[in-house]
Amino acid sequence: MSNFDIFAKDIEIINRKAEELMSYRHDNIVVDAMKYSLSNGGKRIRPLLTLYWSSITKGDKDTALAFGITVEMIHTYSLIHDDLPCMDNDDFRRGKPSCHKAYGEENALLAGDALLTDAFKILSLTKTNPDNISKAVFYLSDFAGVDGMVGGQVLDLSFEEKTPSLPEITKMYSLKTCALLKAACVLGCLTGEDINNEYIEKAENFAQCLGLAFQIQDDILDIIGDEKLLGKPVGSDEKNNKPTFVRLNGIEKSKDYVEDLYNQAVGYINDFDNKEMLLELIGALKDRKY
Amino acid sequence: MSNFDIFAKDIEIINRKAEELMSYRHDNIVVDAMKYSLSNGGKRIRPLLTLYWSSITKGDKDTALAFGITVEMIHTYSLIHDDLPCMDNDDFRRGKPSCHKAYGEENALLAGDALLTDAFKILSLTKTNPDNISKAVFYLSDFAGVDGMVGGQVLDLSFEEKTPSLPEITKMYSLKTCALLKAACVLGCLTGEDINNEYIEKAENFAQCLGLAFQIQDDILDIIGDEKLLGKPVGSDEKNNKPTFVRLNGIEKSKDYVEDLYNQAVGYINDFDNKEMLLELIGALKDRKY
Repeated sequence: MSNFDIFAKDIEIINRKAEELMSYRHDNIVVDAMKYSLSNGGKRIRPLLTLYWSSITKGDKDTALAFGITVEMIHTYSLIHDDLPCMDNDDFRRGKPSCHKAYGEENALLAGDALLTDAFKILSLTKTNPDNISKAVFYLSDFAGVDGMVGGQVLDLSFEEKTPSLPEITKMYSLKTCALLKAACVLGCLTGEDINNEYIEKAENFAQCLGLAFQIQDDILDIIGDEKLLGKPVGSDEKNNKPTFVRLNGIEKSKDYVEDLYNQAVGYINDFDNKEMLLELIGALKDRKY
Repeated sequence: MSNFDIFAKDIEIINRKAEELMSYRHDNIVVDAMKYSLSNGGKRIRPLLTLYWSSITKGDKDTALAFGITVEMIHTYSLIHDDLPCMDNDDFRRGKPSCHKAYGEENALLAGDALLTDAFKILSLTKTNPDNISKAVFYLSDFAGVDGMVGGQVLDLSFEEKTPSLPEITKMYSLKTCALLKAACVLGCLTGEDINNEYIEKAENFAQCLGLAFQIQDDILDIIGDEKLLGKPVGSDEKNNKPTFVRLNGIEKSKDYVEDLYNQAVGYINDFDNKEMLLELIGALKDRKY
């Protein structure tokens, strides 16, 4: 994805900081499993969002890096637990064996638990004022928990029993995907000084649009994407009879909606200074082919 | 356990507060599973410890209740994940179907994840100053994560491959059991005013003795306990060829060591006011027959 090159330097900084933060007193197979999954590529969209929302609020970059990595740790734990046999039973993740395939089910379970736990430890150790830490803990746990991302998983599982409506699918996407993007953006805001609710609200709305657009694009790519670029076969949603936004709404209407959502996202940041990298990120996501 | 009657009122207050804190915007099968496991009896030793260490430091009782319940939530999540088929594969927990037997594996996995996540959310919403919250988040995550309780699980799993030495078993008990008791006691301290490191250190040492004694007593009860009182068959450790402290150290020496550990625990609180309930708790644990 050549238009992602512009983020390469920031991604490298994020990866280096993640390595630095993941040093433990104990060294064991579960620590290895945690590092294996956290270092397994990915676009690092969440920490980038934290970093760029921190720029908008003129926040401290080092705090933003730590905050962003905690969101990535939550994202990583959710993928590890998602891949487990009792959930999606996926043997591969980004072309490599999934965590439980590489380290065994019991260690993958514990690695997920430990990443989730240690995300909060890293927040608590961040060199910022305790008020910011306590707010960051609130937003991260709220968006990641049963009222957020986990709630989205529950909704997703419930669709195996009953075919959902379009609003129900939208709600599931909002919880499963948008919630953690909201955490990423809001935690970025929190690194700034004199943050008022206006920033937080715009960050949440921005993330809602971005996440929904991203998820619907995934549905679209599963229908008309290039298998070579995607690195996986297309048509899997239809084959698995998986209810998606696009299968219920039609592909043309969905494409228009994605366009509209990205424009809305731009609208939420247009009045801010230092929005350039966020605009670049929207552009890159909009054009993505995988 | 008649000598536990003295704690009945406090346990009732803890249970009521737990119910109050477990109200969610979303109501679904995973929320049901969380409530099912959290309300499934137990002696509530961890929240009691938080409450009584809060008394010692003249802390705020309502904060202590909330803090103690977060430790109990972590304890509960660890039992849910422990019982899963890929771990201990236990169908029963305290005489009732384990969480995955009652709600399915995928929901039990998510219920554990959500309890762990929401423990931190409750901490962040506690009505105390942000500095206390951020410290509580640090201690809870540190003692629960891969350097604490989860690290103990990893060590325990490793004993399936190689027979441990007595120091290795002691280390495993310290991480698997004592770590979370330390969190309970330290979080109690944090509710007090002008807490210095002396309190925290004594709370940690106290919890270390208590946890180790508790765990070794479990080993002893598995050999000479009353099946009726225990509600489970004795001799399971020997039958499963499970390495325990007592099997390596001998029963008489282990009994003396338990006695010694409880005396040490008393030593750590002897100089404090308001230690009565903690002394009662030590007495009740010492005399327990199950």
